[in-house]
Amino acid sequence: MADEALFEFLHMEVVSYLFKTADEEKCIPILENMGYRVGHSLAERFTKDSSRFKDELDIMKFICKDFWTSVYKKQVDNLRTNHQGVYVLQDNRCRVLTQISASKQYLEAAPNYLAFPCGLIRGALANLGISCIVTAEVQNMPACKFQIMIQRSQ
Amino acid sequence: MADEALFEFLHMEVVSYLFKTADEEKCIPILENMGYRVGHSLAERFTKDSSRFKDELDIMKFICKDFWTSVYKKQVDNLRTNHQGVYVLQDNRCRVLTQISASKQYLEAAPNYLAFPCGLIRGALANLGISCIVTAEVQNMPACKFQIMIQRSQ
Repeated sequence: MADEALFEFLHMEVVSYLFKTADEEKCIPILENMGYRVGHSLAERFTKDSSRFKDELDIMKFICKDFWTSVYKKQVDNLRTNHQGVYVLQDNRCRVLTQISASKQYLEAAPNYLAFPCGLIRGALANLGISCIVTAEVQNMPACKFQIMIQRSQ
Repeated sequence: MADEALFEFLHMEVVSYLFKTADEEKCIPILENMGYRVGHSLAERFTKDSSRFKDELDIMKFICKDFWTSVYKKQVDNLRTNHQGVYVLQDNRCRVLTQISASKQYLEAAPNYLAFPCGLIRGALANLGISCIVTAEVQNMPACKFQIMIQRSQ
């Protein structure tokens, strides 16, 4: 319990500090970049004793189960793919959103809190050899869909 | 294990971001302030079901044991007081410092990583009704002494 609170409170402070001090359009990339570096380091740590992954889907399952559980104390609720390089991870109770009021007026604040998790996924996947773009979409708080578009080298 | 890494990596990113972007003399107060707000919220959460504290020393023991264990996974190693409003908390393996090389050349970077924990202590104590100034001193990495000076209302 305490750990989660510690991370969540620090994350909220960082978001709030950035939106108070940096240019608004720079805040999201800054948070995404922090998430990337943290996700990259975490994936390195989590996988150092594990066996090789079979394929891309195997890596996605690792992200949805082990990685998500370590970071957010729950698994991703649903993983879908179009088998053409797009994966959608659905979290029905996204921890970063459960701290915000679900009323509509706060819906526009949601992306500020999703930039870090998007970076986290992108960084973890980069560490595991997958280059991608990650975006998040909120439908009904606190549910969230992360879309991962794999970038294949030409 | 994972939680600690998550918090620590984010904390390191925040420190590194601030020292890259903000004026150097402003970084320490910003980090201290973030720590204050996080510590304040954590103390609120940790004590919501606990009984009242007997006295100031009882609160300090709570900080050294329960609070420190929740945040840094270990107790403070030594607590001393001059019984005149000064308390010294010694942590022989301060977690924020164990991530930095112990070689002398990095000693000057240590205060950058101690501003947040100083704020954390000050915020937690403020929530418990104690107004104070907290400073940190590093002697031999990764050992650290936090000095708490209680501010009595005149």
